Amino acid sequence: MKNVVILGSTGSIGRNALSVLSNFADRFSVFGLSANTNMDLLKEQIKKFKPKKVVIGDEESFQNFKEENGSEILFGMEGLKKLCSDPEVDLVINALVGSVGLLPSFEAIESEKNLAIANKESLVMAGELLTRKAKEKNINILPIDSEHSAILQCLLSGKKNEVKRLILTASGGPFLKRKKKDWKNIKVEEALSHPTWEMGKKITVDSATLMNKGLEVIEAHWLFDMPADKIAVLIHPQSIVHSMVEFVDGSLIAQMSIPDMRIPIQYALFYPERLPTNNRPLDLAQIKTLSFFEPDPKKFPCLEICYQALEMGGTAPAVLSASNEIAVKAFLGEKISFVDICKIIKKILKKHEVVENPNLDDILNADRWGREEANRIINLKL
Amino acid sequence: MKNVVILGSTGSIGRNALSVLSNFADRFSVFGLSANTNMDLLKEQIKKFKPKKVVIGDEESFQNFKEENGSEILFGMEGLKKLCSDPEVDLVINALVGSVGLLPSFEAIESEKNLAIANKESLVMAGELLTRKAKEKNINILPIDSEHSAILQCLLSGKKNEVKRLILTASGGPFLKRKKKDWKNIKVEEALSHPTWEMGKKITVDSATLMNKGLEVIEAHWLFDMPADKIAVLIHPQSIVHSMVEFVDGSLIAQMSIPDMRIPIQYALFYPERLPTNNRPLDLAQIKTLSFFEPDPKKFPCLEICYQALEMGGTAPAVLSASNEIAVKAFLGEKISFVDICKIIKKILKKHEVVENPNLDDILNADRWGREEANRIINLKL
Repeated sequence: MKNVVILGSTGSIGRNALSVLSNFADRFSVFGLSANTNMDLLKEQIKKFKPKKVVIGDEESFQNFKEENGSEILFGMEGLKKLCSDPEVDLVINALVGSVGLLPSFEAIESEKNLAIANKESLVMAGELLTRKAKEKNINILPIDSEHSAILQCLLSGKKNEVKRLILTASGGPFLKRKKKDWKNIKVEEALSHPTWEMGKKITVDSATLMNKGLEVIEAHWLFDMPADKIAVLIHPQSIVHSMVEFVDGSLIAQMSIPDMRIPIQYALFYPERLPTNNRPLDLAQIKTLSFFEPDPKKFPCLEICYQALEMGGTAPAVLSASNEIAVKAFLGEKISFVDICKIIKKILKKHEVVENPNLDDILNADRWGREEANRIINLKL
Repeated sequence: MKNVVILGSTGSIGRNALSVLSNFADRFSVFGLSANTNMDLLKEQIKKFKPKKVVIGDEESFQNFKEENGSEILFGMEGLKKLCSDPEVDLVINALVGSVGLLPSFEAIESEKNLAIANKESLVMAGELLTRKAKEKNINILPIDSEHSAILQCLLSGKKNEVKRLILTASGGPFLKRKKKDWKNIKVEEALSHPTWEMGKKITVDSATLMNKGLEVIEAHWLFDMPADKIAVLIHPQSIVHSMVEFVDGSLIAQMSIPDMRIPIQYALFYPERLPTNNRPLDLAQIKTLSFFEPDPKKFPCLEICYQALEMGGTAPAVLSASNEIAVKAFLGEKISFVDICKIIKKILKKHEVVENPNLDDILNADRWGREEANRIINLKL
């Protein structure tokens, strides 16, 4: 029996992870949960899974929370770190959204826990640090993004030195067919309607700008130790092919499934074992058509910026991620336009003085600086 | 340095195999070639590859052949068997077309040579016998069909007991969109124009009836030890996805490439190693669309018949293959119509008394009987 912790258990990935775990109650025990503000759902989850420990991120929610079913209730980042380093824990599922996920990831690895990671920002901000430490501690960082899970599965068909390229697919979000000149007027509710995946607000906007895909390029770089010029992005609106690996012999191996996060979550839980699911199977004859095209760099400058940040190296990706978080928040609050998101990040990245081989403090400083800069630029605009 | 023999070296697969081998002259030496009637090309190949031994299948061609470059020239089936059992040979590539391929396959395995097989009929007629013997002799039977090569590559992404289904893709041939009522009038030259692959005449007609795919289902059954109800066929007109494996967790792994036989040939030569090729890479953005649909059983009754023959077991697939060969020949000679092909096979299979667990003689007898029956029915029609 493995003791599992789910950080961000009330979010989309967290809920799906609990759904998978509840099918394998004989192999996994839910040891800990964390949530930020959705206390109603958290209470339901506590009732059902009876975790030993629960972390609440939001201070007000924490103060008002009544202890239930004997779970120990912890608060904030200190609570998350305590939970991740608990000697009883075997596996941490990090499904937090944003840079708040970094320190718990670090703590989990430091404490020699296997880490199943949906939190992009951990690897974007501190990929070098986390993957190096994971190697030292001999633990696995397993992706539960559908794209990186697909890559992991496709890589099994050959050896690492036989890989020519990783090809990450992107649905392209809701604005694929909208003319570039109309992008200035994109409304928040339009950006929040993703065609194929149901996700949180921040990641949905990131999908519309393709920033999400750019962050995944950076993640893939660290997860699979692959240089940026060997990672490509291809638009595939149906979200059926989750990603591909091209080998040197001209073969391309692709992983497909219905768009259902429970599949990559389960794969990460049992890797490299595959267990049956009762998910609806993929019926290609029903889907009929899979289409592919190159992303338009004029429409999606965020993608290009991510490659630039990766090339700049050091603290640049942390700044990218931080300024994106603030810019997306400002867009959601209707303070800036959709196209401003990328412009702001670009400006900040240009100004950033990269710290090479950063330690955790350097990364946290870069993160803070990126946020401050973004807030400053946004306030100037108002 | 491995000594390789290519049976059927002047055919489409044979020529592609030599093209691959010529890129790896440091690892493979062409020890033997065989051809039937294309003596001009055979002479060119002898000049270029300087094989020690050459087999000529056609008697007249053999009689008129002038010895060239010091190769030993052998004749017919005895020559093929001698070549396949030569102690100096390491690997036999069987690219013969039709049932003539069976005895050389048998001889190669019996003589403990690894076998790269494009000859469908060997496995269709004697799959149980050949795969059992290969196990006993501890040699590999490696497919160089693009479909089975794809399956082999996709299977690496999981364990055998995790496989839910193998999905063989079929281009669907030239008559996919033709109405069923017009099938009676299909002309030979129409049947010979395959949309995506350039192949010999017999296999091109087999592709138009989907018999080719049905034979591949039987092959897959033996190559991958998978029951018939776990092998499905999906129409995919672009011939980019060469086949897929569906796993129990809902993941589907697909292998894609440009339609170029050198890719599966090279994979078989180096399996499980992948070496670089200078083939044009697959550009999905240029191809744009991949489409999939279920085969229409009314249009393609040959597919269903193959499943039936597999279920009947024993000598039934040998009879199926034999009667198909005769029927296709009669269609190419304009003696019967396109839709007659399947009707004739159906009739013969119904009449056949299956011999269970057949030995080589039982299989050859069934083959002979199937041919005689087919010829008898065709002559009655004239």
